[in-house]
Amino acid sequence: MNFMQQRILDQGVVAPGQVLKVDSFLNHQVDMALMDRIGGEFAARFAGCSVTKVLTIEVSGIPMAAAVARELKVPLVFAKKARSVNVDGEAYVAQTEDDGKKTQVVVAKKFLSQEDHVLIVDDILANGYALQALISIVDSAGAAVEGIGVAIEKGNLEGGWRIRNLGYRLESLAIVEAMDEKTGTVTFREETA
Amino acid sequence: MNFMQQRILDQGVVAPGQVLKVDSFLNHQVDMALMDRIGGEFAARFAGCSVTKVLTIEVSGIPMAAAVARELKVPLVFAKKARSVNVDGEAYVAQTEDDGKKTQVVVAKKFLSQEDHVLIVDDILANGYALQALISIVDSAGAAVEGIGVAIEKGNLEGGWRIRNLGYRLESLAIVEAMDEKTGTVTFREETA
Repeated sequence: MNFMQQRILDQGVVAPGQVLKVDSFLNHQVDMALMDRIGGEFAARFAGCSVTKVLTIEVSGIPMAAAVARELKVPLVFAKKARSVNVDGEAYVAQTEDDGKKTQVVVAKKFLSQEDHVLIVDDILANGYALQALISIVDSAGAAVEGIGVAIEKGNLEGGWRIRNLGYRLESLAIVEAMDEKTGTVTFREETA
Repeated sequence: MNFMQQRILDQGVVAPGQVLKVDSFLNHQVDMALMDRIGGEFAARFAGCSVTKVLTIEVSGIPMAAAVARELKVPLVFAKKARSVNVDGEAYVAQTEDDGKKTQVVVAKKFLSQEDHVLIVDDILANGYALQALISIVDSAGAAVEGIGVAIEKGNLEGGWRIRNLGYRLESLAIVEAMDEKTGTVTFREETA
């Protein structure tokens, strides 16, 4: 049982519809000491990968991606959803879905180049559409995806399988295999380290 | 000239329409060393205010608000725009505008109480609607606004005046008084410390 799994057991809430609520420490209220720990953990796991940029997507992955970037002493880049007035000129664009709606994911070209070694970070991996959009953007830039770090992977959905199947190194701190809405029990996939 | 003003002069870009682009270090690509410095600066300025929570609004204020929360060793809470599936039960709601569209700002009630002393943090203060929505949410919770910390205030707009006029302590690291699109010159309001 690692620190992320323990935190989910301590403070996560299983809500109706197979929703795991982690809003008291991860994606609405944020425990900064936990962010530091996540930052240190991913920096250690991806040490030696010569990461030059940490890439995430707005919104809730930003605090933990920032912690990872801080630890690795590289810039954070967060992809924006839909084109905003602040992204000028040329941008890499990919498609994702947000609550069932098609959404554009945008990164200004000037912030990713073929010299970059990118660590993609996000808080929660469900169907994997957001991560696939980020991978597509890194590919468009001719940069290398060194790996993907996720706090919580929903192991009962296909996102993680799909991304590993594409050959990417995906590290999830906690893979939720099952949730019982009646008892509130959360079961994790055993680590095969 | 402080570090924030210097960074704007070094890396900010004056774009047509009186837009100051700071996306290379603040709100698209993010310099984590700068975030640490901002975190330390606001922690020092608001030392002794017994801050219990740092509150910001998605999206681009999150990295610097996280840095301030980290430094003060208190949780970060980021308000969400529009009601999302992850905010359950009761929430404080206020109105703001986003690119001219009315938008709801939402914070789950469980993350703010009348015991809280809140430091509101955001990256850019223009018309002040977002900050006013955050103030309204803190008021709804019966919590105290200890102050407001902003990286860049657009001194040619009314937001800062309006918020100071309401009696709040507003600290802006850089107040942009004027921008010249032809020469790219940025003029700051002199500090009256």
